[in-house]
Amino acid sequence: MSDDAVVRPRPDAAVTLRPASGGRVEGGFWGARQRVNREVTIPLGGERIRESGAFTNLELAALERTGGAGGEHQGKVFADSDVYKWLEAVAWERGRAEDESLARSYDEAVRVVAAAQRPDGYLHTHTQLTGRPPYSDLASSHELYCAGHLMQAAVAGRRATGDATLLGVAARFADHLVKDLPGDALDGHPEVETGLAELYRETGVRPYLDLAARMITGRGHERLPLKGHHGPGIRQDRVPLRAATAVEGHAVRAMYLAAGAADVAAETSDRGLLDALERQWLDMVATRTYLTGGLGSVWYGEQFGGPHELAPETAYCETCAAIGSVQWSWRMLLATGAARYADLMERTLHNAVLPGISLAGDRFFYVNALRVRAGANPDDRRAAARGRQDWYGTACCPPNAMRLLSSLGHYLATRDDEGVQLHLYANGTIRAGDVLLEVETDYPWDGRVEIVVRETPDLPWTLALRIPAWADGTAGVNGEPANPGYHRVRRAWRPGDRVTLDLAVRPRLTAAVPRLDVARGHVAVERGPLVYCLEQVDHPGVIVDDLCLAGPDLRDGAPLPGLPAEVVPVLARGRAHAHREEDGGFPYRTATAPREPEHAGPVELTFVPYHTWANRGAGPMTIWAPMH
Amino acid sequence: MSDDAVVRPRPDAAVTLRPASGGRVEGGFWGARQRVNREVTIPLGGERIRESGAFTNLELAALERTGGAGGEHQGKVFADSDVYKWLEAVAWERGRAEDESLARSYDEAVRVVAAAQRPDGYLHTHTQLTGRPPYSDLASSHELYCAGHLMQAAVAGRRATGDATLLGVAARFADHLVKDLPGDALDGHPEVETGLAELYRETGVRPYLDLAARMITGRGHERLPLKGHHGPGIRQDRVPLRAATAVEGHAVRAMYLAAGAADVAAETSDRGLLDALERQWLDMVATRTYLTGGLGSVWYGEQFGGPHELAPETAYCETCAAIGSVQWSWRMLLATGAARYADLMERTLHNAVLPGISLAGDRFFYVNALRVRAGANPDDRRAAARGRQDWYGTACCPPNAMRLLSSLGHYLATRDDEGVQLHLYANGTIRAGDVLLEVETDYPWDGRVEIVVRETPDLPWTLALRIPAWADGTAGVNGEPANPGYHRVRRAWRPGDRVTLDLAVRPRLTAAVPRLDVARGHVAVERGPLVYCLEQVDHPGVIVDDLCLAGPDLRDGAPLPGLPAEVVPVLARGRAHAHREEDGGFPYRTATAPREPEHAGPVELTFVPYHTWANRGAGPMTIWAPMH
Repeated sequence: MSDDAVVRPRPDAAVTLRPASGGRVEGGFWGARQRVNREVTIPLGGERIRESGAFTNLELAALERTGGAGGEHQGKVFADSDVYKWLEAVAWERGRAEDESLARSYDEAVRVVAAAQRPDGYLHTHTQLTGRPPYSDLASSHELYCAGHLMQAAVAGRRATGDATLLGVAARFADHLVKDLPGDALDGHPEVETGLAELYRETGVRPYLDLAARMITGRGHERLPLKGHHGPGIRQDRVPLRAATAVEGHAVRAMYLAAGAADVAAETSDRGLLDALERQWLDMVATRTYLTGGLGSVWYGEQFGGPHELAPETAYCETCAAIGSVQWSWRMLLATGAARYADLMERTLHNAVLPGISLAGDRFFYVNALRVRAGANPDDRRAAARGRQDWYGTACCPPNAMRLLSSLGHYLATRDDEGVQLHLYANGTIRAGDVLLEVETDYPWDGRVEIVVRETPDLPWTLALRIPAWADGTAGVNGEPANPGYHRVRRAWRPGDRVTLDLAVRPRLTAAVPRLDVARGHVAVERGPLVYCLEQVDHPGVIVDDLCLAGPDLRDGAPLPGLPAEVVPVLARGRAHAHREEDGGFPYRTATAPREPEHAGPVELTFVPYHTWANRGAGPMTIWAPMH
Repeated sequence: MSDDAVVRPRPDAAVTLRPASGGRVEGGFWGARQRVNREVTIPLGGERIRESGAFTNLELAALERTGGAGGEHQGKVFADSDVYKWLEAVAWERGRAEDESLARSYDEAVRVVAAAQRPDGYLHTHTQLTGRPPYSDLASSHELYCAGHLMQAAVAGRRATGDATLLGVAARFADHLVKDLPGDALDGHPEVETGLAELYRETGVRPYLDLAARMITGRGHERLPLKGHHGPGIRQDRVPLRAATAVEGHAVRAMYLAAGAADVAAETSDRGLLDALERQWLDMVATRTYLTGGLGSVWYGEQFGGPHELAPETAYCETCAAIGSVQWSWRMLLATGAARYADLMERTLHNAVLPGISLAGDRFFYVNALRVRAGANPDDRRAAARGRQDWYGTACCPPNAMRLLSSLGHYLATRDDEGVQLHLYANGTIRAGDVLLEVETDYPWDGRVEIVVRETPDLPWTLALRIPAWADGTAGVNGEPANPGYHRVRRAWRPGDRVTLDLAVRPRLTAAVPRLDVARGHVAVERGPLVYCLEQVDHPGVIVDDLCLAGPDLRDGAPLPGLPAEVVPVLARGRAHAHREEDGGFPYRTATAPREPEHAGPVELTFVPYHTWANRGAGPMTIWAPMH
């Protein structure tokens, strides 16, 4: 296991925690998802990206560069980034287990990328093939956005495989940016900031970090041109990040920018910037985060809405925004050591990232609705009712999910001078310096997590286990109660020592605060870190729109046909409202003499994990169940 | 009072009711709105339309037609229609009371329109000034949409003033359509159908009706090209109208098309088409109508959502859609005589049309939100939080409201062989053949309506009074209980006879059916036909987002500063939720041990009529109040 963290602060960075040397997921919940990602999603993604013309663009750019004919750019201006994200996923996979076919795919793709790069280091096929001057339309061109993904892929390649070919390409492009990018240039879509910071961490070339820092400071002065009806906030250019109190605008851009800012804050020991990020993160969680961890409630501009504007039906919850949220929270966790960041990561991974990929790994949601109604308007582009799609014209999400799943082992644990901290629980092993831990668990289906110390130094050290906020009052470590936050066990460890964590994974009801008006009168079902939903396929003879709970008792159910056997459904007593078309059907009635709602009889409600929905056909679905 | 109905079925039309010869609003609720419309909105609208370049376009087209220089078209492709709608309003105003200045404005504008018309009858300044062939881009050009508005304005001019100049222009254009429009041509935006039908009614030229009928039948076969992500339903071209079971797509287009189809059904005695329209209307009211009568819940495409998808915050509720709804319902009322159509007209006029214009008549809402939250995203284009606007780049709504308000008297009453039917109650007079009625009322502020017979034939006839559905169980006529629908009084009337209708206008609570999930746990306040709302300005020290009812008792309040003295607020005991930022602020909490919501103390809730909101500054507002 190499020391292959996704994020690796420099030795002098202002961080509280440092990534463990490595984490390996083996079997269990996440192992199954990693296997599907490697065996199905990544090969399929490579094909789809090839079909989209993204590789052809690189080949054409290479041809043109060497005096050939060139040709017309295909796909979106950010098509290159699909290749880079996919390459990053392949790199992490090679780090997990080398394999000839993977290595061949990787080397071939890196060769194509390298060949497309201009001698001066510049690389962006849309700009190259259209003949536009570099950096002349940064508000829309995504040149630096693509560059950022290239840098992340290159660092992954170096860390996971040891091969530095792509790193050389990325560094040459970064050098071009340092040298030729106009002094106040900003990309309409942040991403290069975090790419530059990690490239600095990998190479030690300080100007990369300085450029990232300059871009963080340069945003928020309304310098980017506006597009259509969009205000400057969409492109993260309305308020300087250090002054902002809330996230706003395009959710993915906000997350990527915040991740880059957290990198810069750590590497420059910028406490003021970190404080601003903490403030924005807290406000985001308190007012603009769906129960799933999903982000973005306004379709127009794929953006954050107002505080507590979190309607489930119109949820945007782009898969990429959830991935960006995980990236930001991880950086905040390293900087501060606060458990809340890992709590949100866990919630988001299980309920906002995973729903973006079918269980079979071959179909995708770009937007993740939290309620789908019967009889949706067939002309409505909100596609949840149509189920996951094979691919997307804007295919940012699938390869983004691929690279996150491939690198998931690196988000499990950290270390500090006191010892080792476990943040996410997955079956597998954790290496942190001279400590090697084995984690045995069927989490999140079961709450028992066994941690076995396999290698340890002689001196005492502290094992810190995150107790999620949802486990308040029910968690135990070695039979003793454990409170939310980090439960610490300090000991002189011996190989073979065991710690048993019990997170008491049981179904529970969750309600929203009063300001979250659209959830009033509803509850959601959660079980451990998983948010559940009611799906049409489990309720024949009624429609989900009419279902409500008849009582608070929840219980685990038997496996459902069509879902993997390990998926635990949750059952509850429910009722179906008798839908009446009386009174000319006008759906509003005088309430001064309230009428008991009429029910058509009892219905057993079957809640399934939200991330498993739309794997047995699409149809009506809701995460919020009415209480009566 | 001339026989100047807006809609005047031919003698052989298949209708149940025919418009009264005339209705005149004098004083009272609607009289005040008509006065503001005439004195403020129409003059201001004329100026704004002039500033938009719409008159200049016509002048340039005239110049070009006569060999002059022409020039560049200004504004939207449908700019001409703003002029026509404004002209229609001015025509109806001249019918209400002649005035030299109005007559001059009218004659001058008609002269400009007539001068722009090509000798062959064609008239659409955008097409003329850009030099594109007529009818070559009907999906987007709005050529026939503008033609329809021209026809309606021309018919209004003829009926209200007797002047036939504009009617000649419209007829020449209609002749051009009959002769030169390709056989299967459809406009992307319906409107010409109802214009052609009314032009037929006025002129008796049957080919106008035949063309309208052909366009009704021709829609719904996916022949119009698609735009962007829009499906064919947006342009009303997915399902043939006779086969459709629900309204769909762009709400204004749906309403205009349905109105035209109702005209065609009446004039061609097409029972199948009328049945299809009734079915769609019933489904619309049962599943896609806001409490206000507002239509359209999806911003993208300004369209209808799925059934019961009626989130108040994201309501689109375009003012034009409400106006189109009134137009459709009126035609359905004439065809069937069913009270439900007048019920919806009343609801829509008071709560979905009126909110589009400020009380002073000088500012406008295009979109009518039903909930505005504190702390809205400043980048969000949903502009409700910014209040009404002076004018709009797409200025369809203000002149549309002008023409409806100017012609409102024509929607009050109808007649049939049995007698006279009153549908809407406004202070003023109703002429129906040799019957003249005087209506004295302070409705909707007060529920007492006195109808005095001023002229009557000797033979007995029936006076039918609509009892709104909301008055179920509380209405009386001459002291006797009266049920919703039409309460009929048959008598040999004598001048001076009086009938007293009491609609018991009192505040009441209204709840939504279970399928309307976003209103669960909330109630609305209504009083007579008016929907009320909570507005920030009346609740200093708390924010509307935190308010809830503390009990079901409602009472009338004293006049509020800043609103006209006749506006009756409704008061209720309420509470403000104590908003807590605990638990890291995550707004979701385990509900197995439910915690009583904390309240920061009692608050007197002040509900004001929704149509009066945003007249004392804009801010948070809601029509749905939480029950706890």
